[in-house]
Amino acid sequence: MAELRPIGVVESVLTDPATAPKQGHEGAPDAWLALEPGVAEGLDGIHPGDRLIVLTWLHAARRDMLRVHPRDDTSAPMRGVFSTRSADRPNPIGLHEVEVLAVDGTRLHVRGLEAIDGTPVVDLKPVLQP
Amino acid sequence: MAELRPIGVVESVLTDPATAPKQGHEGAPDAWLALEPGVAEGLDGIHPGDRLIVLTWLHAARRDMLRVHPRDDTSAPMRGVFSTRSADRPNPIGLHEVEVLAVDGTRLHVRGLEAIDGTPVVDLKPVLQP
Repeated sequence: MAELRPIGVVESVLTDPATAPKQGHEGAPDAWLALEPGVAEGLDGIHPGDRLIVLTWLHAARRDMLRVHPRDDTSAPMRGVFSTRSADRPNPIGLHEVEVLAVDGTRLHVRGLEAIDGTPVVDLKPVLQP
Repeated sequence: MAELRPIGVVESVLTDPATAPKQGHEGAPDAWLALEPGVAEGLDGIHPGDRLIVLTWLHAARRDMLRVHPRDDTSAPMRGVFSTRSADRPNPIGLHEVEVLAVDGTRLHVRGLEAIDGTPVVDLKPVLQP
């Protein structure tokens, strides 16, 4: 259908999906989003304190899984992946809500990102306050 | 990098991106998500009343835009696309929060979806309540 093009990459102390927090509010560390110089213009208007949704490509995930044990708890019944936040799914797009701590050129320092080091970033959007 | 594979398609009375609501809470109609039979197992655990995040591929969007007038208001200064919810962006992934009204096999009836008819669906995730 459509080819995703990375706009940047996650730089984090987290390196192992098995031990990384499952959600950003579960003790995820601060991390950097190192964005491509080619998308610098797209960052205009992002400031410290902003809350952003970061979409990533979970490159370590499996795309052939339709049922999983929620939260890797093998004692729990399996469920369809679309009723879980499992990374394993047909299109493993990660959805992360973070706070911007600092903007340094095309590098964003963010709070609370559970994606591992080297995860491709594919989009950033502001959190909406309806 | 990675090829997105549609898992289904939006069926909606909305057909024109220019006149569709910009966000689901801005008067978007009920719509159907017609999912592929091949992903049926992945829907296990989704029930009426659930709130879901629907990720779509905004196929009518432009991928070469890095600055836009927010909300198409040409009197407003241009801003970087990543500080807006513009559909035009390097990876035009749409992010929509909906309520499930009914589940009919691999068809989900949902409330409040501003995506236009024929928009490919690429992922579904539960809304988390931290």
